[in-house]
Amino acid sequence: MKNYSRTDLEAVISKVAAVDPALEKSARAHLDNLTKPIGSLGRLEDLAVKMYMASGGNPPKSDPARIYAIAGDHGVNAENVSFFSQEVTRQMVENFLRGGAGINVLATTSGVELVVVDAGCMGGTFPEHPRLIQRKINCGTANISKGPAMTEGDCLKAVFLGIDLADEAHREGINTLGTGEMGVSNTTPSTALYCAFFGLDPKSVTGPGGGIDAEGVIRKTGVIHRALSANKAVIEAGDSLSILAALGGYEIAALAGLIIGGAKNRQMVCIDGFISTAAYAVACKLCPAVGGYSVLSHASAEPGYAGVVKALGRKPLLHLDMRLGEGSGAALSMFMLRAAANIYNDMATFDDAGVDSGN
Amino acid sequence: MKNYSRTDLEAVISKVAAVDPALEKSARAHLDNLTKPIGSLGRLEDLAVKMYMASGGNPPKSDPARIYAIAGDHGVNAENVSFFSQEVTRQMVENFLRGGAGINVLATTSGVELVVVDAGCMGGTFPEHPRLIQRKINCGTANISKGPAMTEGDCLKAVFLGIDLADEAHREGINTLGTGEMGVSNTTPSTALYCAFFGLDPKSVTGPGGGIDAEGVIRKTGVIHRALSANKAVIEAGDSLSILAALGGYEIAALAGLIIGGAKNRQMVCIDGFISTAAYAVACKLCPAVGGYSVLSHASAEPGYAGVVKALGRKPLLHLDMRLGEGSGAALSMFMLRAAANIYNDMATFDDAGVDSGN
Repeated sequence: MKNYSRTDLEAVISKVAAVDPALEKSARAHLDNLTKPIGSLGRLEDLAVKMYMASGGNPPKSDPARIYAIAGDHGVNAENVSFFSQEVTRQMVENFLRGGAGINVLATTSGVELVVVDAGCMGGTFPEHPRLIQRKINCGTANISKGPAMTEGDCLKAVFLGIDLADEAHREGINTLGTGEMGVSNTTPSTALYCAFFGLDPKSVTGPGGGIDAEGVIRKTGVIHRALSANKAVIEAGDSLSILAALGGYEIAALAGLIIGGAKNRQMVCIDGFISTAAYAVACKLCPAVGGYSVLSHASAEPGYAGVVKALGRKPLLHLDMRLGEGSGAALSMFMLRAAANIYNDMATFDDAGVDSGN
Repeated sequence: MKNYSRTDLEAVISKVAAVDPALEKSARAHLDNLTKPIGSLGRLEDLAVKMYMASGGNPPKSDPARIYAIAGDHGVNAENVSFFSQEVTRQMVENFLRGGAGINVLATTSGVELVVVDAGCMGGTFPEHPRLIQRKINCGTANISKGPAMTEGDCLKAVFLGIDLADEAHREGINTLGTGEMGVSNTTPSTALYCAFFGLDPKSVTGPGGGIDAEGVIRKTGVIHRALSANKAVIEAGDSLSILAALGGYEIAALAGLIIGGAKNRQMVCIDGFISTAAYAVACKLCPAVGGYSVLSHASAEPGYAGVVKALGRKPLLHLDMRLGEGSGAALSMFMLRAAANIYNDMATFDDAGVDSGN
């Protein structure tokens, strides 16, 4: 696998164009001329405007859309922070490939493609499968409660894995990317990243994840405190890539790359829930312009999520009390992007329809 | 058109079975055995449970689904309560039939059928159209600010129109109904119904509807006060059908019938926004058991809606700041019902997938 430098990453980031705020006006003017009360389709209209701006001023087009469910394991699992055993990461990847998981059902329902990626699962390679990309960087991260999760070199490899996936999808004509993930214990590194980036108190962000009890949440909170302490110098130095390497995971780093790569390609990126939003937070720190291309798909039911969203200054699209991850919320939001694009493109104008446009 | 009596309506209502709360346990047990953390699909799981219970204990099946967009005009339009002129009801019906309206686009996007119904539009019949049912009861209601909107006989005709639509759909194999409407000024009778049924203050419920300004909202609030005053004796007597006849509209009464008829047939009914929820409120007053078959599709952005939902003790599914009506929110929620049904039916169990089910 190729090695990457910070300079390589800076070169990619320099190609991400901030969306032009002046484009909003023409998108709104178009929407206001359609046969409906002005603004009456609310967030669907906002999505259409966002897609118009992201594309540089073209009619919104959300399809075809593809979710990358990127898997990795976490050394911090040794601290007993998860309801599920570490083997479940691998078992769920296999379940994804057989089509039995929540993300399979929701991607199919939404009419979007699912591609599974091994970025850092424990164990060896998986049997070959047409929907599986095997680019394992390492067999799980190191234990963040004792030190950094990844070397900077491995972290860059994971970020570039995500950038490559976005580029590959772009070459294949994919207009919208969705972030998905699988990695037992990965709410723990996500929580640590939120605390490090936004100065949030671990107690306010730590939740049950896959389903640990109240005692487990207290234990997990303690582990996050130790992770922040073990990586204190890096956090205080404030370099985003180093913080990602210290506290993140291979799937989280790859998703951060996917978000940056998608923005570079002017693809829309539907960010899933608690873990994907940690990747989004990283991507924003590295490259704030990604915000113009990203949609927070849904408000995770993980209790700390509301504080995270507030820190990000963003508003999730759906509020369905979901906390599955895998890309499940991204799949549903992709349907909403399609609805928004269709509204923009397919509704009649007042003139065309011979409808009086009001007082 | 046939005449109906209160006894006829009572006969239909007596056939609406309250869902059996004991069924929840078996639906949850099935969901808890699927390869995901328990409860992690949140409201999708709740929807699946609701469909299971509504069907009397069968695997959820939301498709095929059909929205009835029922149109009617309102005498209270004479009081200058709407942003749009009364002709727009008819123009929008024609727009629905040509496929250019928001509801056309969203029904198509969601993969559900749209049928348009004239229950009480001003003017004559429309040219025939395969997706139009013409069962006009009257050319608009009387002005509710001066007296009752409809005679009891006409109100019953409208309610039975809705019941007939539900029955017709049921015979055609439709599993899910959606409520849609078109009627310039129809937020005014809807608001009056909310105030009459729940004792809400017109000031707290009245909003801009299609887009009137602040001054218009004050005028509209005054009109609703006058409607409540002109129909005071009926409201105080507390008979729900009489209140519907006094303050409602043909489309609202027909939608109330659709909701009751759907429940009788054990069909799911996706309730759209502000106006459809007034029909739902009527249906609940006439037949509380409809709640077991109905989903409040989305939280209307109409400012009074939050208070209405509180009065109903229900929680809308989507929060997209929409206030278009037409059935637009119902179309989107029908997609969510499909997602919920697919989750229930298509996900693998822990055993089947060979995934460890956790601690």
